[in-house]
Amino acid sequence: MKLSIKEVAKIIQAEVSGDLSCCIEGVSSFHDATPAQITFASDQRFLNQLSLTKAAAIIVPDSFLYREEDIKNKIIIKSKNPKIDFFKIVNVFHSQDNIKPRIDNSACIGGDINIGIDAIIESNVFIGNQVTIGNHVRLMPGVYVGNGVSIGDHTIIKPNVTIMDKTQIGRNVIIHSGTVVGSDGFGFAQDQNRHEKLIHIGYVVIGDDTEIGACNTIDRGTLGITRIGCGVKTDNQVHIAHNVEIGDNTLLVAQVGIAGSTCIGKNVIIAGKSGITGHITIGDNTIVGPFTGVFSDVPQNQVVSGIPHLPHMKWKRMVSILSKLPEMRKKIFSFEKRLKDIELQNKRLE
Amino acid sequence: MKLSIKEVAKIIQAEVSGDLSCCIEGVSSFHDATPAQITFASDQRFLNQLSLTKAAAIIVPDSFLYREEDIKNKIIIKSKNPKIDFFKIVNVFHSQDNIKPRIDNSACIGGDINIGIDAIIESNVFIGNQVTIGNHVRLMPGVYVGNGVSIGDHTIIKPNVTIMDKTQIGRNVIIHSGTVVGSDGFGFAQDQNRHEKLIHIGYVVIGDDTEIGACNTIDRGTLGITRIGCGVKTDNQVHIAHNVEIGDNTLLVAQVGIAGSTCIGKNVIIAGKSGITGHITIGDNTIVGPFTGVFSDVPQNQVVSGIPHLPHMKWKRMVSILSKLPEMRKKIFSFEKRLKDIELQNKRLE
Amino acid sequence: MKLSIKEVAKIIQAEVSGDLSCCIEGVSSFHDATPAQITFASDQRFLNQLSLTKAAAIIVPDSFLYREEDIKNKIIIKSKNPKIDFFKIVNVFHSQDNIKPRIDNSACIGGDINIGIDAIIESNVFIGNQVTIGNHVRLMPGVYVGNGVSIGDHTIIKPNVTIMDKTQIGRNVIIHSGTVVGSDGFGFAQDQNRHEKLIHIGYVVIGDDTEIGACNTIDRGTLGITRIGCGVKTDNQVHIAHNVEIGDNTLLVAQVGIAGSTCIGKNVIIAGKSGITGHITIGDNTIVGPFTGVFSDVPQNQVVSGIPHLPHMKWKRMVSILSKLPEMRKKIFSFEKRLKDIELQNKRLE
Repeated sequence: MKLSIKEVAKIIQAEVSGDLSCCIEGVSSFHDATPAQITFASDQRFLNQLSLTKAAAIIVPDSFLYREEDIKNKIIIKSKNPKIDFFKIVNVFHSQDNIKPRIDNSACIGGDINIGIDAIIESNVFIGNQVTIGNHVRLMPGVYVGNGVSIGDHTIIKPNVTIMDKTQIGRNVIIHSGTVVGSDGFGFAQDQNRHEKLIHIGYVVIGDDTEIGACNTIDRGTLGITRIGCGVKTDNQVHIAHNVEIGDNTLLVAQVGIAGSTCIGKNVIIAGKSGITGHITIGDNTIVGPFTGVFSDVPQNQVVSGIPHLPHMKWKRMVSILSKLPEMRKKIFSFEKRLKDIELQNKRLE
Repeated sequence: MKLSIKEVAKIIQAEVSGDLSCCIEGVSSFHDATPAQITFASDQRFLNQLSLTKAAAIIVPDSFLYREEDIKNKIIIKSKNPKIDFFKIVNVFHSQDNIKPRIDNSACIGGDINIGIDAIIESNVFIGNQVTIGNHVRLMPGVYVGNGVSIGDHTIIKPNVTIMDKTQIGRNVIIHSGTVVGSDGFGFAQDQNRHEKLIHIGYVVIGDDTEIGACNTIDRGTLGITRIGCGVKTDNQVHIAHNVEIGDNTLLVAQVGIAGSTCIGKNVIIAGKSGITGHITIGDNTIVGPFTGVFSDVPQNQVVSGIPHLPHMKWKRMVSILSKLPEMRKKIFSFEKRLKDIELQNKRLE
Repeated sequence: MKLSIKEVAKIIQAEVSGDLSCCIEGVSSFHDATPAQITFASDQRFLNQLSLTKAAAIIVPDSFLYREEDIKNKIIIKSKNPKIDFFKIVNVFHSQDNIKPRIDNSACIGGDINIGIDAIIESNVFIGNQVTIGNHVRLMPGVYVGNGVSIGDHTIIKPNVTIMDKTQIGRNVIIHSGTVVGSDGFGFAQDQNRHEKLIHIGYVVIGDDTEIGACNTIDRGTLGITRIGCGVKTDNQVHIAHNVEIGDNTLLVAQVGIAGSTCIGKNVIIAGKSGITGHITIGDNTIVGPFTGVFSDVPQNQVVSGIPHLPHMKWKRMVSILSKLPEMRKKIFSFEKRLKDIELQNKRLE
């Protein structure tokens, strides 16, 4: 497959300087690109060393100024968002396999089912009763779909995912392998030293355009709903407990855990390995740093870090002093001695 | 389905004030309940605002005192344990689907097998050789059961769970999806810069009435046994290494990790994201706070927090000072200066 | 099965004192061994109490000196590496089931496939198109293998593992259950408040003799490769993000997470629950302690601990002082008062 620079410029509606008839044959990263490929440079680190990439063409920010001698022989394509535009070209070269709609013979499908047009149900998929599957949905091998589940149009569920009863999944959702949606939450009541299981009758709702990483666990509500908003993206090994709510466009990075009934706002970022306690609220646009333990409410537009969390700048100052604690302690011992000496001396002087 | 208050009172053996002939049609949480439903209020926060729920009937603690005007039109049901009694009613309304015992044609079953009465073996289940399956056991789609495994009566294994060779599972156990029981532990011996794998010949024993969350990993013993007691409950994404022992009725919250050969007592609570190092002992009834790193033995009846762990109250005091470190450091600098001034002055004074 | 001590000595090429014709009937741990079994003792704790094991024979370090009265009736076998030699005998007693090469009827196998000799493809395995499977490979039930994957000789993939497109797996690799290799990384570009998905066209390469634990997630590269070296061992629930590189013989303990594009050297040990930030480098032979957060580069041959990480000894000193913070703060308050008193006094004295 080949694409002329003219075609590239048309796809991403960009301004180009250089030979429009030149053709590229693929896409690659800045350092790995060959002279037949296109790449991109969006941050200063790469822009400062454009001569290092062998790529024929480079997509750069439209604000980028350069001298002709720095880019000789290279085609420079200016874009408002080089990364997004580059991946548009990646999409052209690596368009998804065109898989034909079909229901595999080995799939086990229950009663009272509604399957949309052009759905792909692959081998060994299990579908329970009263399930609604939208148009163009793809269920890959080994997927389990419980009773009463609904899955919106164009959603793809990767191999070996488990979707338990009554889960509602929106349109254009991707759920990666190994993930479990809608299993019972960790809910017990104490009864004479035994932990009595609370039956979970709630369910999970996942909004449109959401992507759930691999090996996530998202528990159904005890009575009500565990709600994942629209445009939410979770990384791998994220745990979301019963009755949690996650606002639209929020990002949960790998190995994050969110305890029961907590409410996370919109456009929040929770960085990797952080843990959020139960029954609290985190406001819109807040950023929780990596490896942070949030033990109480955080208002909107904050940045917090540490276990337990502090405002990020306060945490940074605190951390910078931690390694100086031994020295501070020594100082305190020496002060004790000096103060005693002075006090003795002053007794004499009085 | 409908239930009269008289029937409700009989099920939970409770004292009722109000119209016994009134009927409820379902169960719900305090805030979501409709006028045809029953709910419960067990803590003061909800008891203080009983007028806010629309529920027809509310189960409350039997010690709860109220004025008639606060609860007008509502039926108040007094109970020793409102939460547990409410969930008894939930159970009546949402009794598990009555699935007929059967062995699906697509199940792949080995030789020398013993399957109890009324077992349910669903689609694409794999069962190895020399396996014993108790009465009323349910193996859901995609479950793998290795050679020599035994599973006690009334146990349910959810979809896509993997049970490796020789695992022994008790009665009334629930294992949630994605969990792996009995895989090899992380055991290697150093041999000239290579990590030589140690063959794992031990196995996992899980006691009665235990519930294992989703995406747990419980490793087999290297030589001996990894033992999970009776009544233990683990949340999602819990890791239990080889040769660990977990005492009866202990709770392990989400994303906890327990390293090899560690021994956890009975009635212990290990809160979310905590990590317990290998070859140590944690005594009965001890509570390990969230996001705690336990690096050494903890006796019974303790509460510990922090990385590494401290007695909880000590940790709380420590944490309250952490954010004041910059101020403390400034003080120390100012003391240095003031001490020097005084010492100079005293030299003059002498 | 029985083995004479003479045979044992031959297998591990060891020096033996005692009755060579004596036979053992099995292997066990130091404390669980019966008088018909063999065990080993490699560290001083066990060597000091040899009389406590009931084993007929004990493998000990060849440097170990003992008095005859301490070991009466026991056969002592001296070895350079008692643990490794003991597990050689374990291997003899517990050789893997001899499973016959076969391709199960229920396996779903794509086109343009290359399967080596003596491969074992078990029930409900899915194999995509253009896949190469080496000799003696075993794919256990429920394994998913995507398009374009290659798997080297003697590799075993345990039940319910998911291997996504284009993954390259070396020889003698073991991948434990529930693990997902080659799913899309967490890569998005911001576009007017939406997170635009970046198509992932890279893949995962896993070297020879590597063992991947249960419920791991190893993401494919965005454009390039996520590379796991040879002889690497990962424990359970490890997360490795897109474009990460892991050097040969490195160990990643349970619940470790490594963010995108980070480069880990050879012979590194990253202890349990640690997190490594993205786009950094950790040098060869470095040890990262348990529950550590590494937020910046670490050179080779270091030991680091803490969140954020410090040199291990510095961290230990810091930690030893943490619990003394309340006392230090009190001291500082008392100094303030004493300094004021002195300053007042000196004013008078001047």
